[in-house]
Amino acid sequence: MIDFYTWKTPNGRKISIMLEEVGLEYKVQPVNINQGDQHQEEFLEICPNGKIPTIFDHENGISLFESGAILLYLADKTKKLLPPGNAYWEVIQWLMWQMGGVGPMFGQTHHFLKYHPDVSEYASARYHKETLRLYGVLDQQLSKQTYLAGDYSIADIAVWPWVARFGWHQMKLSDYPNILRWYLEIASRPAVQKGYDVPSFGETVPIPPE
Amino acid sequence: MIDFYTWKTPNGRKISIMLEEVGLEYKVQPVNINQGDQHQEEFLEICPNGKIPTIFDHENGISLFESGAILLYLADKTKKLLPPGNAYWEVIQWLMWQMGGVGPMFGQTHHFLKYHPDVSEYASARYHKETLRLYGVLDQQLSKQTYLAGDYSIADIAVWPWVARFGWHQMKLSDYPNILRWYLEIASRPAVQKGYDVPSFGETVPIPPE
Repeated sequence: MIDFYTWKTPNGRKISIMLEEVGLEYKVQPVNINQGDQHQEEFLEICPNGKIPTIFDHENGISLFESGAILLYLADKTKKLLPPGNAYWEVIQWLMWQMGGVGPMFGQTHHFLKYHPDVSEYASARYHKETLRLYGVLDQQLSKQTYLAGDYSIADIAVWPWVARFGWHQMKLSDYPNILRWYLEIASRPAVQKGYDVPSFGETVPIPPE
Repeated sequence: MIDFYTWKTPNGRKISIMLEEVGLEYKVQPVNINQGDQHQEEFLEICPNGKIPTIFDHENGISLFESGAILLYLADKTKKLLPPGNAYWEVIQWLMWQMGGVGPMFGQTHHFLKYHPDVSEYASARYHKETLRLYGVLDQQLSKQTYLAGDYSIADIAVWPWVARFGWHQMKLSDYPNILRWYLEIASRPAVQKGYDVPSFGETVPIPPE
């Protein structure tokens, strides 16, 4: 059994989708970041960085924060969604691209374009431009491969929930036909649909307009 | 032999320090990001994301971008600086904390505080605050352990070159006594001193004032 501390954010959804894909039993521990639960002493004890997602695995007593680390851990534990051999490194590379690029930069776009659109034209333009650049890199990669790195993997699971926020990015997903194809295919997976709504608020996977 | 595409940045230095620590033979291929070498067709072919560091390993034909992926790869190849067992996951967790937090957020601080101090008070304050928060998390962790995650590891090598830019962060390293102790100890390692100056411009490891 895995205790899963999370909230309805892209980083949280990476892990709920992964848990659904690999079929591990887990118990959701909601951490309402809108009311500051992540700053509570109890949560900081297992995650000194004060951010979801975090897990505690009762099987071996391991607790782990950082979504990228948790994805690797769950893939290793179940031997799923992370191939061995040279393909391993391709997945790791694109997972790190998500961790160092897509996550933090889309996150800034959310801050400046969605939540604080009036505080800095310079910052809004900076992060919008970088977001579109990252979409370009992703579209190019998906023009060469069905998935980001070989077969469907934790690299796709890391990136997809961030692309699911396309409605906040001042762009049209249809301008990136390879991403659109990939996005919709992954959106149709039952584990993704179930994992998207964790903790459950009845939210469904966003589907872009035709 | 490893071809190592890099420039004198924190992410580049992670890899040069790692290569020096593990003693692998490598050939530096300088990519001058100040003159836009990273956008050249030749470089984009091995790194479609257009960012250093990137490596090409002649032994097996693997090419790899993203500093976090390269650190993992070199640790796996040499069986050094990444322990097995439960300790493995602690290193991975802090490596991911660097990839998703310290790197991107310190990077924004460099943009707004060092290079563009006059474009947005809001953004400058935002990233300065987040940088100090991350220093706080790091100092707390180093108050409990000599290194970030058990023994000296790729987690320390990932974070250290970013802290080496303390002079750009509008803070005093001496306000964080545990970081200062850790920083100076790592700064004294011959591999770190050698790796810091790659590509070589005669630069030496910054030492904070008393």
